[in-house]
Parts: sequence; structure tokens; C-alpha cells
Amino acid sequence: MAEMAYSPGLEGVIAGESKICKVDGEKGMLYYYGYPVKDLAANADFEEVTYLLLYGKLPNAGELKDFSKRIRSCRAIKAPVLRMIQDFPRNSHPMELLQAVISFLSGYVDHKIEHSPTCSCRSTLHQIAQLPSVVAAFHRFSNGLEYIEPREDLSHGANFLWQLKGVEPDTDEGEIMDKCLILHAEHSFNASTFTARVVASTQSTCYCSISAAIGSLFGSLHGGANEKVMAMVNEIGRVENVRPWLEKALADKRKVMGMGHRVYKAKDPRSVIIEDYLQTLSKKHQDTSSYDILKEVERVFREKMEEKGKPIYPNVDFFSGAVYTLLGIPSNLFTPIFAIARVSGWLAHIIEQREHNRLYRPKALYVGEMDKPWQKLEDRT
Amino acid sequence: MAEMAYSPGLEGVIAGESKICKVDGEKGMLYYYGYPVKDLAANADFEEVTYLLLYGKLPNAGELKDFSKRIRSCRAIKAPVLRMIQDFPRNSHPMELLQAVISFLSGYVDHKIEHSPTCSCRSTLHQIAQLPSVVAAFHRFSNGLEYIEPREDLSHGANFLWQLKGVEPDTDEGEIMDKCLILHAEHSFNASTFTARVVASTQSTCYCSISAAIGSLFGSLHGGANEKVMAMVNEIGRVENVRPWLEKALADKRKVMGMGHRVYKAKDPRSVIIEDYLQTLSKKHQDTSSYDILKEVERVFREKMEEKGKPIYPNVDFFSGAVYTLLGIPSNLFTPIFAIARVSGWLAHIIEQREHNRLYRPKALYVGEMDKPWQKLEDRT
Repeated sequence: MAEMAYSPGLEGVIAGESKICKVDGEKGMLYYYGYPVKDLAANADFEEVTYLLLYGKLPNAGELKDFSKRIRSCRAIKAPVLRMIQDFPRNSHPMELLQAVISFLSGYVDHKIEHSPTCSCRSTLHQIAQLPSVVAAFHRFSNGLEYIEPREDLSHGANFLWQLKGVEPDTDEGEIMDKCLILHAEHSFNASTFTARVVASTQSTCYCSISAAIGSLFGSLHGGANEKVMAMVNEIGRVENVRPWLEKALADKRKVMGMGHRVYKAKDPRSVIIEDYLQTLSKKHQDTSSYDILKEVERVFREKMEEKGKPIYPNVDFFSGAVYTLLGIPSNLFTPIFAIARVSGWLAHIIEQREHNRLYRPKALYVGEMDKPWQKLEDRT
Repeated sequence: MAEMAYSPGLEGVIAGESKICKVDGEKGMLYYYGYPVKDLAANADFEEVTYLLLYGKLPNAGELKDFSKRIRSCRAIKAPVLRMIQDFPRNSHPMELLQAVISFLSGYVDHKIEHSPTCSCRSTLHQIAQLPSVVAAFHRFSNGLEYIEPREDLSHGANFLWQLKGVEPDTDEGEIMDKCLILHAEHSFNASTFTARVVASTQSTCYCSISAAIGSLFGSLHGGANEKVMAMVNEIGRVENVRPWLEKALADKRKVMGMGHRVYKAKDPRSVIIEDYLQTLSKKHQDTSSYDILKEVERVFREKMEEKGKPIYPNVDFFSGAVYTLLGIPSNLFTPIFAIARVSGWLAHIIEQREHNRLYRPKALYVGEMDKPWQKLEDRT
């Protein structure tokens, strides 16, 4: 039936209009509400970018001060949530815990106004402020350490490192963490952002919508690529091994993680910036081993692909795992950090969805049977 | 740009193939894996229908016995989850709690096989068995009562009433509860089922996918219609008030809840069956007040709509709230009961999604700005 043709995974299907994010894959440009991400990373902090995503405009000095104060005042973890984190199985993945905590927190918010088009996404900021605290607390408990109270004098990124390690990060490290969050805050429609919009379209709460999006980001086809890049770096071990490792990987048709992107045909602007951070940190820690391996993978892989006439570039995941590792973050927290950053983009999309809402309700193409006769239990084989 | 036309809410867009459920709106028929729902409600119990949805075939006697035993053995609530329920704010909605509990429970399952196409959706049945226990425990704690341990000798529906009230339901009531779950178990693609499939398409866990679907069902545009029907019955108060109430409602362009359906042009087969249950219970409790009001709403509303040439019928939500009320269930549990039933359908769709997976990743139509120049904080107004 030709009229029943459809696009699996809704590939190429437009699912809505948006003013939030533009990915210009040809030019290697990424915009949040019209601002190039490189300008945002160079000039703003994560809270300022979050304001931009939630309000569609940059804040003035007074608005930013107020907004930043409101987020920071929501960082402390409530006692019942602290119990949930303590109770959560130690070897399980913190993404499952994050998803649970955010819907649990929905119970603490008065959603009367949230079930209406003018929602409280912008007024209650726990869904942004709590994520770093919960991830840090999970990490501490899993390692037999005590919970560390948040500090309101630190940026979003620097406070996360503080709560994680109990040591105040120096200016460089706090800033690099915060900028990495900016670079991951938004990337138009993708499975998790689309999930957030679908759930929000039922007029569910923004917490429940974000919880759902976390569940989506947890999927191994969505988040988690930078964790796999670091596993590759560890497997390769040293620069001299790169060429034989890659030749074997290509022969085995194994995917080389962190290289290439569905949309970017030029360099992903985020990877350029993150490479800078990696250089800074490698120099500072006098440890260039990961960076050297990654650059060699990039060089040899591009050489191999150019032989086939397929130019290929590092994507956002290629250098970020090595950056987080040098910041002292274990790899099971890489996807949770993605959630800590992306929550701002999810909220932006939930707000936009509500402004011109239409319930998402696509059709299924039925390919099954009908009118099967009932069979008694004893007659079945 | 004509080529940029798209369908808001993906209305009319096919989002995938499915063999699970067929709604024949013209004939007023609903099928689960080819079996008419009226045959299932007449002959099977909820566990048998759940087996059908998870395996695509009816179980033989041995398979059903084993499956039923496995579900019933997963009913008891773990201590950390009991603490979550006790800690959850009393006046908040149990749907937020259910969403949190199911992702939390994901941490107790070994998902190694679940991240692969042959997932553990069928092997770990806590996501089905725990929902009634959690809803009942929430209700008991909210009313200052003690948690009641589940009983393995009762059906899914009867055990729910037992855990809710601490009194064993008589055969009629236990059976009606169980059959209501069958009638709500599956209804093809809709916002919550679509959410489950989108999250599963990332290869997230089936618990995380179901948690997300619960968040979607919580939305007031999705679940919750039967709660509104009972609010209408209470507002009308008595049969004599129906006509003036309806005339005013129509003049005010107020929506009459529980009447009409997007897909069914004939009678919704589920409402016919639920009306039978309501008659049985009304007679038994010698209280026909809700049933009388509902029948009068149906009669007068149809008369009004037929004047306009628009025949209209009761949908699944029209009589179910009154059934639950006569079973002694408060209205804040109506949407959670929908989740208790629909989880089987969600799991069926998650399994089907994984069998022929393609990541859901539609496109956005960008309608925003680009290349906005950076403005210093102090220059912004």
C-alpha cells in the first residue's frame, strides 16, 4: 500500500516549530536563541545561558543577579531525597536515580498554575539546581564519603566540583566545568528533548516531563558516547598503538566513537572549544597522554576516511570525556553531567511547547490480525 | 514555504507499525493481538491478558500458572520504596510518586540484557506487580492507615482492593476490578504509549520507559477524564438537574466529559461492558443515583447532539468513575488505576519497539533568529 509509506523513527519528519536552537551543519555553527554558542561560551556562565533558554533573551544585570540567586538557593537536598540517594543500589546507574528524584520533587511543587499554559517552569528552579547536588551526593555515598553541602558563592559548574570532591576547584577548573555545561545545554530536537515535549504536550508537570527526558537520555543510543570514547582511549593505552588499533577496528567494522555527526558536515563548533579546554588542563596537570592519543586517533582516522573520500571530524563527545577525567570525574557520571547541562534546553522546549500546545498523538500502521476466535485455556497447546 | 508544511502534534502521521492493537472505530471494535476485547473481558483475567500483550499469544495452562505466580511474587514493596511512599507529600498526586518509584526500581534490575534487543521486559515483572501495591500504600499512608501486605492468592484486581481497604472483596467486586484493568490495558498509540516507545528507542531500560509513560499519562489532556465525569455527576447532584445543567453547559460551550471519542464513531465496546458492571454494582449497593444521572446525561446529550446531526456515544471514561466509586475507591486514584492497567500495553509496545528498533529523532522547523551580536551585560536594558 503506497499511501501507507511512513518514515521509521520519524526521520526527516517535522514534529514542530522552534525558535530555540539552530544547528547549521554546513557552516559548523550552533545557535541558542540566535546567539552563536562560541560567543556564549566565551562570555557567559551557565546560569546566564539558562536564563537565555528560559526567557528567550539575555538578562540584564539585575535579572541575572536575581535569577542566579534563585537557582543557588535551591541547591540543598531535602531529607527524603537524601534518603532516596542513600537507599539507591550502589552499583546501579545514577541516571535511574536522577529520573526518580525529579518526579519525586514534582510532589513538592504547587502545579496548579503548571497545568495551564502559563506554567511554573520559570518560577520553580529545583529541577535545575538539584541535579548537580544529587549526582555529587550519589557519587560520595557510593564511595563511602559524606554528603557535602552546596555553596551559594560558586558558579553552577564550580559548585558541582565542590560538592563532588569537597575541595574548592581553582578558577580555571570551575570555569571549564561551567562552560562544558553551556556547550551541552541545547541541541534542538533529539530523542530526550522530543520526549520532554511529548510529555509536556499532555499538560503534565515540567518536573514529570524532565524526568521522562532523563530516562530517554539514559539510553545507550543517546547519551553516553563520551564514556565510550574514554573506554577507547584506555583500550588503546598509548600513542604508538593508535594506528594498529584503528586498522583493526576498521577491519572489524567497529564504530570509532566521537568521530562524525549526522548533522555537522564541518567541524562541530563545540568540539573546537572543548579541545582548547583539554589542552589547558593537560598542560596544567602535566599529563597529555589522553590528548595525544585522541589527536592521533583524529589524524589517522581522518586520513583513512579521506582515502575513501569521506571527510570526518570530531564531535562534541570526542574530547569531553578526557576533560572530565582531568577534572577528576569518574566516567559513570558523564551521562548525568549531560543531564545537568541539558535540563536547561529541555525546560526551554517545555515552555515553548506549552505556548502553542498540541497533544502529540501520531498514528500506528496496524499490521496484525483481527477477529481471532477465543480458545479455552485447556484447549491451548 | 509550502514544502515546510507539517502536522502539529503529528496528527495523522504514522509513527510506526504495530501488531498489538486495532481500534475499529466504525464498527465499535477493539482488538488486543487480534482478540476482541469483549471476549477477553468475558473469559480472561488481567494476568492472562498481560501474558497475551507481552508474548503476542494466549498462554496455555502451564504458562499462565507460571506467569501468574511470577507476577504475584513481585507484589511486596521493598523497604526503601516504602520509605519513599511515606516521605512523599501527602497532598500531592500519586502519579508523580508512581513515576519516581518505577525509575527507582530500575536500579534493582540487572539491565545488561535489557540494553540489547532481547530485553528483560518479560523476565522482571516488578514494573507490573508493584503499581497496585504502591498506589494502595500511598492511599493508606495519606489516610493515616497502615500498609497492608499483598496476598498471593488473589487476582491482580482483587489484591489491589485488598491492599487498599484491608478487607477481602467479594467475588463480584474483585472480578469487576480485574476486568476494568483488562479494558484499560491497551489502546494503540496515544501520548503515553508513544512516550514509552520513544524512550525505549534510545535503548533505555523498560522501567525508565514506563516511568516516562506514567509522566505522560499524568497530563490532564491524557488521563483523568473519568475523574472529571464523577466531578460532573457530583455537581449535577440529582436526575432532575440534568437537563438544565446540560443546557447551561452547552450554552457556555463547556465540554461534557466522557461523551464522544476521536476514533469511535459507533459505541465504544468498553463502555458497553463497564455500563454492565455499573448496573451490577448499583443494584448490589442499592444505590443507583450515579447510574441514573449518567443515563440521563447520555439521553439528553444525545438528543441535543442529534438535533445538530451529530450522533454521540459514551466513551470508556463515562461509567468507569462511578464503578470505582462504588468499589470504594477515591477519585484521586482513578488515573493511577489507569496506569496499573496500561502498564501491560506499554510493555507490549516497548518489546515491539525493540524488536525492530529505530531511534525516534524527528526534525524541528526553525523559525527563530540567527547571528545575533553579543551584548555586554552592562549594556543590556
